[in-house]
Amino acid sequence: MAFEAMRDTRQTITAYWASANARDWNAFADLVAEDVVYELPQTRERVRGRSAFVRFNAEYPGEWRVEVERLVADGQHAATWGRSLLNGGEETGLCFFDLDDEGRIARITDFWPTGYEPPAGREHLVERY
Amino acid sequence: MAFEAMRDTRQTITAYWASANARDWNAFADLVAEDVVYELPQTRERVRGRSAFVRFNAEYPGEWRVEVERLVADGQHAATWGRSLLNGGEETGLCFFDLDDEGRIARITDFWPTGYEPPAGREHLVERY
Repeated sequence: MAFEAMRDTRQTITAYWASANARDWNAFADLVAEDVVYELPQTRERVRGRSAFVRFNAEYPGEWRVEVERLVADGQHAATWGRSLLNGGEETGLCFFDLDDEGRIARITDFWPTGYEPPAGREHLVERY
Repeated sequence: MAFEAMRDTRQTITAYWASANARDWNAFADLVAEDVVYELPQTRERVRGRSAFVRFNAEYPGEWRVEVERLVADGQHAATWGRSLLNGGEETGLCFFDLDDEGRIARITDFWPTGYEPPAGREHLVERY
């Protein structure tokens, strides 16, 4: 069956964050492929397979929820920019998703950018906020 | 005129990186709105307006080019995950784009995640690469 006939990518990614926020791990697990690969390039960590990936999320410590700032969905690919509310603080999480032919999430690449001081020499073009 | 009749978002973002890599600042300028807003949340820097934004890129020091790893385009929104080749090294740049009703890029939010050490306690679920 063609990809278009299966799940809707936007709906899948929306359900992904909703089920994570609700700690509904059955619904969450159903959205990802059996052989899902999750990568964190900044730490060079990789989680393989649905079971380990669900545990990785279920065991993630602290009171966290993700509010989606942008969701861009495009065929079998998607990206989200999320505000991750964790223990009273806020971090930014950016995910790129690749879906398989059945519309399940097969690969997630997750980035966590943090603050840094800007380089000198561009003060004439920028403002700070 | 409806947005759909104007420019194609995927084509616009593809041309954005191609013109930046080619240092074709006229082509680059034509893709962004007169009142474009460019933000770097990690440094809390903001550049306002086409003229300053083109200069920001044209004056950016070093030999750099961006190879697009993923481009996700969705109506008036898009995201890219790019490998930025700079002075022999490589960094990761993640951009979220919002386009105006004429198909020009009106807002760019740019993230530069860097490496860090993973927290302890999840070694049983992850591998390092």
